[in-house]
Amino acid sequence: VRAIVLGSAAGGGFPQWNCGCANCTAARDQREGFVARTQDSVAIEHEGRVVLFNASPDIHAQIARTRALWPRGPRHTPIAAIVLTNGDLDHVLGLFSLRESQPLAVYATDTVWRSVEQNAFVRTLRRFPEQLAFRRLPLDEQIALRDSTGASLDIAIRAFSLPGKTPVHCSDAAPSREDNVGIAVEGHRFIYAAACALPIALPADVLLFDGTFFRDDELIRQGLGVARASDMAHVPIEQSLALGRGRRIYTHINNSNPILDPTSAERRAVEAAGWEIAVDGLEIPL
Amino acid sequence: VRAIVLGSAAGGGFPQWNCGCANCTAARDQREGFVARTQDSVAIEHEGRVVLFNASPDIHAQIARTRALWPRGPRHTPIAAIVLTNGDLDHVLGLFSLRESQPLAVYATDTVWRSVEQNAFVRTLRRFPEQLAFRRLPLDEQIALRDSTGASLDIAIRAFSLPGKTPVHCSDAAPSREDNVGIAVEGHRFIYAAACALPIALPADVLLFDGTFFRDDELIRQGLGVARASDMAHVPIEQSLALGRGRRIYTHINNSNPILDPTSAERRAVEAAGWEIAVDGLEIPL
Repeated sequence: VRAIVLGSAAGGGFPQWNCGCANCTAARDQREGFVARTQDSVAIEHEGRVVLFNASPDIHAQIARTRALWPRGPRHTPIAAIVLTNGDLDHVLGLFSLRESQPLAVYATDTVWRSVEQNAFVRTLRRFPEQLAFRRLPLDEQIALRDSTGASLDIAIRAFSLPGKTPVHCSDAAPSREDNVGIAVEGHRFIYAAACALPIALPADVLLFDGTFFRDDELIRQGLGVARASDMAHVPIEQSLALGRGRRIYTHINNSNPILDPTSAERRAVEAAGWEIAVDGLEIPL
Repeated sequence: VRAIVLGSAAGGGFPQWNCGCANCTAARDQREGFVARTQDSVAIEHEGRVVLFNASPDIHAQIARTRALWPRGPRHTPIAAIVLTNGDLDHVLGLFSLRESQPLAVYATDTVWRSVEQNAFVRTLRRFPEQLAFRRLPLDEQIALRDSTGASLDIAIRAFSLPGKTPVHCSDAAPSREDNVGIAVEGHRFIYAAACALPIALPADVLLFDGTFFRDDELIRQGLGVARASDMAHVPIEQSLALGRGRRIYTHINNSNPILDPTSAERRAVEAAGWEIAVDGLEIPL
């Protein structure tokens, strides 16, 4: 079993399409050490079959450059299941790029799936009855993932609630424990928690954790926005640095985050604390 | 004024994510002359400002590699307006990748816009009142495009009805003349007609036309599907080869189309008839 980081940027990607901040400009200019990143998603591969954690808007580009996701027949995909961890657009929009009459098994909590169902686009995943196999993702219960036909993928996961928030397009929904989840794979071998509002200890052999912002007021300081990290339900890195044991990797990194600058003090602080910084294509043996 | 082909493939892209046909395999193996393509979209650039015809799911990748679309400030985009030509997912999904609190002017017919509004995602484009300026696209009337603030872009377009169909996710809607349009830019200098069900003459200095399929039964012959080109409202190339004068370019090319193979008889037939075949990044002076 291995994990492959398909995308390691927060919503909008890095560089972000409408951002000319110092980091984004350096990435466009291909300055050394400034590595472009697509939006957050992780693949778990086991014996030639793949589970995606989240469906990024960049999913086509992610598939194109990841051999483990290439088809092996005229109409085929190794992608056997997709697990959604919240309803944010950067995690669900890619579903609608997987619509070419390909059977899909999608796991999500009821509240996350309800937010997807509020879009007429979802009908494009239901051209025939077997196209979309929706499976409710339970909290705090280990389940064996199955493909759209019901066959086991021999991958066990457990979803657990993480403090988060409802997506912007569902801000009228009542908050729920199901809004935002982390995923533990095969016991504690791997934990994926790309969005988390509080510094919570998540013991795992390998932890892939919310590295969206370094500081709570990062966007405000840089004149890029008025929201704090806490407004967007992301714990800033400076509050999570001391967490965890085992291998620890930050992902879902926003373009404003100073750790993207290879020469920054913040990059040194993260590395000194023993954390790694995810890049697209990073392979993690589990 | 110049046009830039941002994407020249039909829905699904080339290679298509779940397709291992001869063309897609050759593209993945980077065989000579098999050129990967993202999904259909065109940029019109005039004095540093840009109008997009359609918002492809691949819009982030298209922006990243097209300097004319790069921001020129901390939060900025040269993209001043977006014109939707139908409600197909490969033409509208990219709207939701342009959501980072960036004011957008979107032109669409009422029926096309209604299909977009049937998705809760659209709320993410309305975080503040000025974010989304929707403008009704009239048929058969020349209009001057304006940005989200109402300022003129000095680009005149005329939309006209083309035979098409409603998108899969809106198949319960009554057919309308507004379902699918072509766009004429600055009189007849440039016509963009990426989807057209019948071989209609469209006189223009430069014509960018529906090249989805070469034959009506192309998918069936190749064992890739059961639908005909006509079922999907695309006139096959073999019925449009004799059309038009001026510079004529096929775009919106499906992965199954034999013209993607540089050694095919169909490629030779297209070139012998005086047509070009669009590739991503093609720049067309107007």
